Amino acid sequence: MQASSSAADGHLYEQVMAEMAALIEAGTLRQGDRLPSVRRLSRQRGVSVATVVQAYLGLEDRGLVEARPQSGHYVRARRAPLPPEPRLPRPTTTACKVSVRSVAARVYSASRDPSIVPFGAASPSPELLPTDKLNRILAAIARSAGGAGVAYDPPPGLPALRRQIARRSVDWGCALGPDDIVTTIGAMEALHLCLKAVARRGDTIAIESPTYFGLLQLIESLGIRAVEIPSHPRAGMDLDVLEEALGRHAIKAVLAVPNFSNPLGALMPDEAKERLVAMLARREIPLIEDDIHGDLHFGDVRPRVAKSFDRHGLVMLCSSFSKTLAPGYRVGWVAPGRFRDTVEQLKFAQTVASPTLTQMAVAELLDEGGYDHHLRALRRRLAAQVARVSEAVAEHFPAGTRVARPSGGFVLWVEMPTGVSALDLHDRALDRGISVAPGPLFSAKHRFLHCVRLNCGFPWSDLLDHGVRTLGRLAGEMVGS
Amino acid sequence: MQASSSAADGHLYEQVMAEMAALIEAGTLRQGDRLPSVRRLSRQRGVSVATVVQAYLGLEDRGLVEARPQSGHYVRARRAPLPPEPRLPRPTTTACKVSVRSVAARVYSASRDPSIVPFGAASPSPELLPTDKLNRILAAIARSAGGAGVAYDPPPGLPALRRQIARRSVDWGCALGPDDIVTTIGAMEALHLCLKAVARRGDTIAIESPTYFGLLQLIESLGIRAVEIPSHPRAGMDLDVLEEALGRHAIKAVLAVPNFSNPLGALMPDEAKERLVAMLARREIPLIEDDIHGDLHFGDVRPRVAKSFDRHGLVMLCSSFSKTLAPGYRVGWVAPGRFRDTVEQLKFAQTVASPTLTQMAVAELLDEGGYDHHLRALRRRLAAQVARVSEAVAEHFPAGTRVARPSGGFVLWVEMPTGVSALDLHDRALDRGISVAPGPLFSAKHRFLHCVRLNCGFPWSDLLDHGVRTLGRLAGEMVGS
Repeated sequence: MQASSSAADGHLYEQVMAEMAALIEAGTLRQGDRLPSVRRLSRQRGVSVATVVQAYLGLEDRGLVEARPQSGHYVRARRAPLPPEPRLPRPTTTACKVSVRSVAARVYSASRDPSIVPFGAASPSPELLPTDKLNRILAAIARSAGGAGVAYDPPPGLPALRRQIARRSVDWGCALGPDDIVTTIGAMEALHLCLKAVARRGDTIAIESPTYFGLLQLIESLGIRAVEIPSHPRAGMDLDVLEEALGRHAIKAVLAVPNFSNPLGALMPDEAKERLVAMLARREIPLIEDDIHGDLHFGDVRPRVAKSFDRHGLVMLCSSFSKTLAPGYRVGWVAPGRFRDTVEQLKFAQTVASPTLTQMAVAELLDEGGYDHHLRALRRRLAAQVARVSEAVAEHFPAGTRVARPSGGFVLWVEMPTGVSALDLHDRALDRGISVAPGPLFSAKHRFLHCVRLNCGFPWSDLLDHGVRTLGRLAGEMVGS
Repeated sequence: MQASSSAADGHLYEQVMAEMAALIEAGTLRQGDRLPSVRRLSRQRGVSVATVVQAYLGLEDRGLVEARPQSGHYVRARRAPLPPEPRLPRPTTTACKVSVRSVAARVYSASRDPSIVPFGAASPSPELLPTDKLNRILAAIARSAGGAGVAYDPPPGLPALRRQIARRSVDWGCALGPDDIVTTIGAMEALHLCLKAVARRGDTIAIESPTYFGLLQLIESLGIRAVEIPSHPRAGMDLDVLEEALGRHAIKAVLAVPNFSNPLGALMPDEAKERLVAMLARREIPLIEDDIHGDLHFGDVRPRVAKSFDRHGLVMLCSSFSKTLAPGYRVGWVAPGRFRDTVEQLKFAQTVASPTLTQMAVAELLDEGGYDHHLRALRRRLAAQVARVSEAVAEHFPAGTRVARPSGGFVLWVEMPTGVSALDLHDRALDRGISVAPGPLFSAKHRFLHCVRLNCGFPWSDLLDHGVRTLGRLAGEMVGS
């Protein structure tokens, strides 16, 4: 449970939630059992009714209990116990040229077709985002902006947006100023600028394994070589293996997603972040940190960024609003540390400027103050959706399947028995109108042959239910064949 | 005069305009002389009143005549004859690494300060653009788009926009289909994608000299080497020199702006375009064609693009709506010929997608049909502005100054006497609140030490008048010192 790890320093309701979750996990409270009434537990524990209500809401979000109208809260039917977690990949000792094929393009083009079950591309459903509010803000700005709306907004980008981002950086353990930030076309341009600032064609960088295929494509397009460092399903990049690799290769940079990596959903503990930053600082190696999922924590506390431990300007922090507000607005940013001037110049050379009006709209929404409220609701929904898909996989996938326990974000990594080819499963599923992201996409060496990543960005529905059942059946047929 | 060169195959009013212009040039009609009344000339020449009105409007636009209310048309006071044109730069025979310094950044940041006289960055005034109309369209779309407005629009980009671009391609001598096109973040991302598709770090490409400093920065950021081919002030890249260079260097691509190059405003004749395309096709060398100013012709006919002569898919045509609709919308595109799949994959790797709503707004404006009307007015305004700045330079700059005769676009290349350092002039002018783009920016070898480029994107005003006077005085002081 997320709750238990943060209960000590978390809120009261988190403690209550952790206690009840432990009772359920231990089997003390079983499927169908009624939980103590809100009023009764409130008296028992000497906490307010509101605290218990929030705790029970949290248990609902995590899929552990369900509320029955006029009756109370009951332990939910968990159709099958969750399978074990995926294994840690073995380290590899060689750098290799990165090459990812056109499967990624098929995953993305499937995401444009609303009739296809959307387990492929990692994208939150627009209905979970403040779509209408943001579009209304943009409309109002466009009507009143006049010439400012059509004029270039040259790098480092819109001051109002950089101010809002800087303001929020306190939550991540940083104290960025507006001038520390350069706005970009989504996080992907931010990562691109960072890579170009610190590495060249033929250079080697270290990355997590498995890692998001978009990053692999970017690295490939730059002709950069990658050493894949195994990533622990819960704790992220294996720093012992990294340290060894730093000794063996001339590594120009490390690219990592410490908070809710993609596809594992791993959360690197703070001590590990600190160790990573120090390890690289000793060698003057830049860390390119992708924090695109950092705001989507299932636990109570917004995790720190590795950059919060940076004393030498060597950490280049990248993020965007694509996962929390609007993928199609393409508003991202980077805090490039000591590489700021280089990044700003490269930004100008590559895309001249980011669109003006979309930056203005995001800045305005952040300024209005509803963003934190939105994030709280979004996190609850995503946690519930990940839990629901996990359960369905447990129920329908063949024996021997393993499932990650993401602690944030909205993707689920599934390791199937060795008989199941993920690439074949992708093809057969797509024939049946279901998109998944097959494991080999997530490795420069095309490892993870038996894994798939499932997008959990959409609310549970009959369509998704049908999708998981079909995937499980197809996988089962491959095991048997 | 533009008119005379296209009169043979142009409209009637062009013929009338050319005749009257010739009378003024020859001194038959002198400063202050009244032109024949519209009705009278109409009877004399046997053409309609509307034709004469249009001819006189054209003469006004070119700064040759002025209308006096209730009185008629008069030959305008031309304060000084235009100085000669700049000279053709000497060919250089070596490739060199491209390096352009931070002066470019100062030129761009000056463009954000409305108190600075805007002769620096090449940007049309928002008041010349359909700013309110476009912003209103965007507002209406944002209000009604719902989830489609916030969702990713993955490469190749918005179908409706690609359809509109394809529809317009007939005007340039092409017959592109929507699937030939990939949308981008402005023309700069288009050029970036093309360069990455066909050249690598350390490779050599051929470019025009002088050439836009943004292109030089882009080439520098990719570690590509450039052979500078001299560009004729009227006819563009010297193809004899290019042909020789192709024999001497392993040139991977040619990057050119055949229609209204920046900074010269040169227009490559159709036969030269055809020769260029054929010359490269024989050697299987791609041509990256930047047509960003193609719609801004001062003459009557929209010039063809070099791609219209492409039989082998080797021409990669890039453009955007940044100069004609909205720089800050960042809507550009590329027709990459045989490199389409590579470009589409690179686009995904670099910026994932272009913003959705701004593409929708531009597509809608193009679909509504007012774009051609807008372009006609914009061209007239820009031609008049270029003429006005040219005259002011003639009047105020020191003897020995040369001025280009751009046939489209909105920048003016000025070659000053050798005593005048353009970089010093830039610094001294900026101290006085005037921005210019100094010549050395426009060459990888920092040639053009005595040249400046003046942006003519803004309507003539006392501020601009003051700006040119001050620049002339500063330059004069340097000649004398």
